[in-house]
Amino acid sequence: MPAIDLNSDMGESFGRWTLGDDESLLTVVSSANIACGFHAGDPAVMVRTLRNAAENGVTVGAHVSYRDLAGFGRRYVDESDEDLTADIMYQLAAIEGLATAAGTHVSYVKPHGALYNRIVTDERQAACVIRAMQMVDASLGLLTLPGSAVGRLAEQAGLPVYREAFADRAYTPSGTLVSRREPGAVIADPTVVADRVARMVSDGTVEAIDGTVVPITADSVCVHGDSPAAVAMAKAVRERLEAGGVTVRPFAGHAS
Amino acid sequence: MPAIDLNSDMGESFGRWTLGDDESLLTVVSSANIACGFHAGDPAVMVRTLRNAAENGVTVGAHVSYRDLAGFGRRYVDESDEDLTADIMYQLAAIEGLATAAGTHVSYVKPHGALYNRIVTDERQAACVIRAMQMVDASLGLLTLPGSAVGRLAEQAGLPVYREAFADRAYTPSGTLVSRREPGAVIADPTVVADRVARMVSDGTVEAIDGTVVPITADSVCVHGDSPAAVAMAKAVRERLEAGGVTVRPFAGHAS
Amino acid sequence: MPAIDLNSDMGESFGRWTLGDDESLLTVVSSANIACGFHAGDPAVMVRTLRNAAENGVTVGAHVSYRDLAGFGRRYVDESDEDLTADIMYQLAAIEGLATAAGTHVSYVKPHGALYNRIVTDERQAACVIRAMQMVDASLGLLTLPGSAVGRLAEQAGLPVYREAFADRAYTPSGTLVSRREPGAVIADPTVVADRVARMVSDGTVEAIDGTVVPITADSVCVHGDSPAAVAMAKAVRERLEAGGVTVRPFAGHAS
Amino acid sequence: MPAIDLNSDMGESFGRWTLGDDESLLTVVSSANIACGFHAGDPAVMVRTLRNAAENGVTVGAHVSYRDLAGFGRRYVDESDEDLTADIMYQLAAIEGLATAAGTHVSYVKPHGALYNRIVTDERQAACVIRAMQMVDASLGLLTLPGSAVGRLAEQAGLPVYREAFADRAYTPSGTLVSRREPGAVIADPTVVADRVARMVSDGTVEAIDGTVVPITADSVCVHGDSPAAVAMAKAVRERLEAGGVTVRPFAGHAS
Repeated sequence: MPAIDLNSDMGESFGRWTLGDDESLLTVVSSANIACGFHAGDPAVMVRTLRNAAENGVTVGAHVSYRDLAGFGRRYVDESDEDLTADIMYQLAAIEGLATAAGTHVSYVKPHGALYNRIVTDERQAACVIRAMQMVDASLGLLTLPGSAVGRLAEQAGLPVYREAFADRAYTPSGTLVSRREPGAVIADPTVVADRVARMVSDGTVEAIDGTVVPITADSVCVHGDSPAAVAMAKAVRERLEAGGVTVRPFAGHAS
Repeated sequence: MPAIDLNSDMGESFGRWTLGDDESLLTVVSSANIACGFHAGDPAVMVRTLRNAAENGVTVGAHVSYRDLAGFGRRYVDESDEDLTADIMYQLAAIEGLATAAGTHVSYVKPHGALYNRIVTDERQAACVIRAMQMVDASLGLLTLPGSAVGRLAEQAGLPVYREAFADRAYTPSGTLVSRREPGAVIADPTVVADRVARMVSDGTVEAIDGTVVPITADSVCVHGDSPAAVAMAKAVRERLEAGGVTVRPFAGHAS
Repeated sequence: MPAIDLNSDMGESFGRWTLGDDESLLTVVSSANIACGFHAGDPAVMVRTLRNAAENGVTVGAHVSYRDLAGFGRRYVDESDEDLTADIMYQLAAIEGLATAAGTHVSYVKPHGALYNRIVTDERQAACVIRAMQMVDASLGLLTLPGSAVGRLAEQAGLPVYREAFADRAYTPSGTLVSRREPGAVIADPTVVADRVARMVSDGTVEAIDGTVVPITADSVCVHGDSPAAVAMAKAVRERLEAGGVTVRPFAGHAS
Repeated sequence: MPAIDLNSDMGESFGRWTLGDDESLLTVVSSANIACGFHAGDPAVMVRTLRNAAENGVTVGAHVSYRDLAGFGRRYVDESDEDLTADIMYQLAAIEGLATAAGTHVSYVKPHGALYNRIVTDERQAACVIRAMQMVDASLGLLTLPGSAVGRLAEQAGLPVYREAFADRAYTPSGTLVSRREPGAVIADPTVVADRVARMVSDGTVEAIDGTVVPITADSVCVHGDSPAAVAMAKAVRERLEAGGVTVRPFAGHAS
């Protein structure tokens, strides 16, 4: 029986500011990327989000970031090896301890925002993330784009690597994401998005922006939840998958 | 054979800013209160300090604080129960994970600055600190003033409690500290300070600011290290103790 | 012809986090309390909010706060005189320069959150706020509760003082606010709230929580805008006032 | 009579952390680049530093930075146009208001650290800095490397531009700085450094790292002050200049 994981960013509120409808999302996804305080997620938000994830049986990932609250971790920061490694170690240590207190545990790491994009190609910063994972918990998996530098380094280090696809993003004929600055980069129609995800799972393919069919292998599909429309789309994706006989279940523990 | 612990604050540098001569201090004290990032101590500083403590065989404590870099944790912050509990949990989780990565572990908690002083009497915030310790690691000890509210709550919770005395501070006839705002509150002469600490250990007494002799029982004596003179004084205390046949050794594991 | 000012907090978004519907509110109120970056409001938010206020002809106030993004300025911080005075000076200087760049200017200061409440009674911190205003711009007015310590000090310093009432809050028989922790402290019905504000303006009275009628004199009435319901209530208040022949116009320049 | 300006970074303490000996430096230099709170310099430090500069008759510059306390502004941050422009505007507005309160005024802008280096070549971020200066105070001068992108844009915008040389840095044969990662990049001998600065002023040349003589035209020479040795070197430079009949005086108002 075919199966897939759905993951979403969560715990991105901070103090007075609320972002996303985590309660609804936790009934939709099987894996939650939880912010660790460096781009979002103060400690009280983290504790609440971890408890909610535990109660919903949703697998927990550490959504680690550059130290950049003002930029929500979406700005590249040219951190030194020592600083970046220690920043990631600190976030991993913090969320692991809080997860234990909340009755769950951290299964994987998904770098956030600008860091996620940077270490697709930046070997230096990618190595810092891998080193941090090895030093804090060598059993953690890594969720990343297929073919990324950080994924390659993780494999060399013996860490489980999981491949991520994106539900609402257009792909190029070579299988990479169309830049958000290009027209058509983001797909807004829930039905179209749900159909694309279903096809990724059933056929292992996606239709690229130029109409060519390209192979895509994913352990997890990212859905967004930072707006009511995003939550509705996530639900549409899950319903479409289940209607097609696809089980939604955590990827962690199912590395390919 | 008489024995006492010497503790000192450490790891209080941050980014470009250096504070204290941690390398020297680690050869003097038996316990290091290490900042956890909320009043001082960025992650890279924490990792370095924990490694240095491990190499020197110095016991590690978590120096947890209000979230207040600009005020160095020396300003009371009226945090809610949920925020304060989660802030302490986060700091404890972070330093425990980093300590493991550095080849050591955290043995005790010493609240820092304004939080240390506040929970001597504030039952509400004291309870938050105890709850955070119980949720993250119920084996942690607490280092606090004798007779404090937080010490009482820790005992009720079954946590080991260690009593702290201060090497360079004057005492009142009732055994509390003379406020820093009073003349004579801080003692600057290393010989006098060393003699007072030796007497605390040998006789269990200290001469109060009015000349009366008051009983004092301490598991650990705090020495400072944030200036060259402070490091010199810490060394004088240790030499005086050892010359008098007193062993300097960690208090953790030796709760009275 | 009777007239009153309506003021509301604004510019309280920060980075990725949005709070309040400022665009709608700017068509309702006559004075905008704009966050200065210490509890909310990053520089880009400030510039946008100041431009919008200028375009809508809304008077600008500096919504100064303790340095406390994580607590949204709602937690008392025991800042020293030097720190608090300088923190307020910095915020005033920043918003005044940005206001000029945006084609407007700052007319008054409304302390935010915990600082607002604290200096109703704390003479020391109240004096810091007044000193900061005098040093940066002695022409600034102060918006505060009638009878507050900070209002008294402002008058002694020769600064214009404006008295604030609250649209949706219950009053005690002695004319102070009922604590938010008491039942009935916040009034949710827009019609009731609008009627109360109309009565404040027409009769100079408000019905206290025990039914007694107490005198109230206000230069400005605070309406909230941090939720869709709050914006709807603000609109209801304005419509009720205008239907009753009351002009809504800025208080600044109309000190009593 | 030949004249030159000496500038130095100042006001880079933060809270409990002290950096540099500003009091001594203010008797040596003619221009002070004062941190604005984003890489260093809390508001109380800014007020004190501005007052000290005013008392010593030292010209004030705004040392603006990326928002990066943890990295001391030494890490490139990929800020958007809107964010960077507003961040610089905010810092300029804050320091201008505080300078007025301290009885002085801001004459120029010297971008700090990673921002300084970035906008030597990055046209996009350079344009943000220029736009911010124009919007807050179009009379401000800019202190930058000769030939920089930001200098070119400043000239096009009609802002005064001042050229900076570095006292203790080696130059390449083409007149640029030798990277700090190369051997010999930083010159430690105060006599050598003082002689080089004297030659820059008297002959308009500097000996490059390969021995060739290259022309150099400077309105201001940067000396450092973040260590006792740095302050001693700054004094040596000033004494050598004055012994050679060179006047040390502010560059601002003397644009070439």
